[in-house]
Amino acid sequence: MRIVVALGGNALLKRGEPMTTEAQRANVRIAAKALAPVAGQHQLVITHGNGPQVGLLALQDEAYDPDENAPLDVLGAETEGMIGYMIEQELGNLLPFEKPFATLLTMVEVDGADPAFKNPTKFVGPVYAKAEADRLAADKGWVVKPDGDKWRRVVASPEPKRIFEIRPVKWLLEHGTIVVCAGGGGIPTMYEKDDERKLIGVEAVIDKDLCSELLARDLDADLFVMLTDTDAVYLDWGKPTQRAIRSAPSAMLSKMPFAAGSMGPKVAAACHFAAATGHAAAIGALPDLSRIIAGEAGTTVTATGSEIVYGS
Amino acid sequence: MRIVVALGGNALLKRGEPMTTEAQRANVRIAAKALAPVAGQHQLVITHGNGPQVGLLALQDEAYDPDENAPLDVLGAETEGMIGYMIEQELGNLLPFEKPFATLLTMVEVDGADPAFKNPTKFVGPVYAKAEADRLAADKGWVVKPDGDKWRRVVASPEPKRIFEIRPVKWLLEHGTIVVCAGGGGIPTMYEKDDERKLIGVEAVIDKDLCSELLARDLDADLFVMLTDTDAVYLDWGKPTQRAIRSAPSAMLSKMPFAAGSMGPKVAAACHFAAATGHAAAIGALPDLSRIIAGEAGTTVTATGSEIVYGS
Repeated sequence: MRIVVALGGNALLKRGEPMTTEAQRANVRIAAKALAPVAGQHQLVITHGNGPQVGLLALQDEAYDPDENAPLDVLGAETEGMIGYMIEQELGNLLPFEKPFATLLTMVEVDGADPAFKNPTKFVGPVYAKAEADRLAADKGWVVKPDGDKWRRVVASPEPKRIFEIRPVKWLLEHGTIVVCAGGGGIPTMYEKDDERKLIGVEAVIDKDLCSELLARDLDADLFVMLTDTDAVYLDWGKPTQRAIRSAPSAMLSKMPFAAGSMGPKVAAACHFAAATGHAAAIGALPDLSRIIAGEAGTTVTATGSEIVYGS
Repeated sequence: MRIVVALGGNALLKRGEPMTTEAQRANVRIAAKALAPVAGQHQLVITHGNGPQVGLLALQDEAYDPDENAPLDVLGAETEGMIGYMIEQELGNLLPFEKPFATLLTMVEVDGADPAFKNPTKFVGPVYAKAEADRLAADKGWVVKPDGDKWRRVVASPEPKRIFEIRPVKWLLEHGTIVVCAGGGGIPTMYEKDDERKLIGVEAVIDKDLCSELLARDLDADLFVMLTDTDAVYLDWGKPTQRAIRSAPSAMLSKMPFAAGSMGPKVAAACHFAAATGHAAAIGALPDLSRIIAGEAGTTVTATGSEIVYGS
């Protein structure tokens, strides 16, 4: 099978951990253990998040020179290099030397007319006191919004429209290469308004799961897996009535309500993939990856069927 | 032809320029103009340096948290992402949309027993006053050496032994993909002493030209071009008797003396490539790239022959 696996944020950094190279490596090593058996049996594409890493790089930029921040497209490219390197190295250490690897920089086109640009919602970088946030907004043209009792920069999270490097990814997969790509949702780019042939970077952040779904669709993947903190999608999450969903047809699951901030986008991406391709998508926890692929753990979203199967 | 082009440091940043994203982009745009006609006619692999970029990232790390520096392998991976992105985007803007591109993260094996580790010589990062440099050396285990009237960290520059991603690069070239790889001489790695299967990052810097030469050799390139500030290799450079070398057989050129800090390593790499492969190498200036490939500019180093041809 050809499988696209989207690593969750906790595969790189657990909540509250200091973001040192060593902490990230230790987490990547755990992820590599779950990925290695899959890589031996299937065509494997790995994507990952980059939120905390972009935040740290932005903070470092600012500590160094408050007036000179690298834009988000460039920071995204840096994190694709950094995180891709760790995944490639740690997973490579668990596989036979002969297994080919490639970490590909991935540019993703977004639409300048995407409504997300009118209403930026994605927090990036550090938190500030209100006065400081207002000053930065005035100085740098940022949009800032409250995050708890502090303020923070927000940027648009537009929909991914096109992944530019899709053919190289396909060619590499056909040669049995494990491909790491589309890190952090890909580098956001768009064609300039006045010059439709000129691609430029965009100050935005693309949702990792949405981008991974587009990637899986473009690659005609047999299975699209999103890994996260929880072992399955739950109905009534956090309530006494909560029940794990073992499998569900996309047409039924897509009508059920899930929190916009957590499981909602993952469920939407899984349903869209299954409906669009006729292939299954799955959501579950990293250590269960092999069992998720076998249909024995996590939540499987199917293209057809008329029944939701619940677990405990 | 299959051509490996190594961009010089000035293709990314001119001496004395502030290292802003915009300045780098402007320079990459100039390089893209020279590369575009070549990309249309040949299989093209592009490599590049990363010295100033690694220095800046190290400085940002330090401004943010003096005790938590990302190691040089990780910083190298970040710059491969950042610089590769700019090259891919700017060159892509000059070529037909259909032309496939891939920027590949590149890990390079070095030998832990390389004598370079006993005598680190490569300056990295910012300069310090002596007291501060001594403190950092004690705190972080750095080796520091004088650089002018200031002090600076030095790291080993070991010889590149193996490029891990060579097969993916070949497969992509066979599909007509323009490949950006081996940036900054590649990410330095080695197998751990106590575990020969475990690849780890190394606090070192690999010479970009040496690594590009190994890459060109591994790829069986028809031509290996190193771009630099000067239009050719000169005999008696800077003296009234200086003469540009238009072409020279590697066996003769390799016996002539060139400055270790500037043209020496490039000449050595060119001679080694020509002697090892029977194909030509060339050294010259970025704007002359098309003419260098045609043998009409720069210095061509040939595998055979018995005559050095001088220009003006």
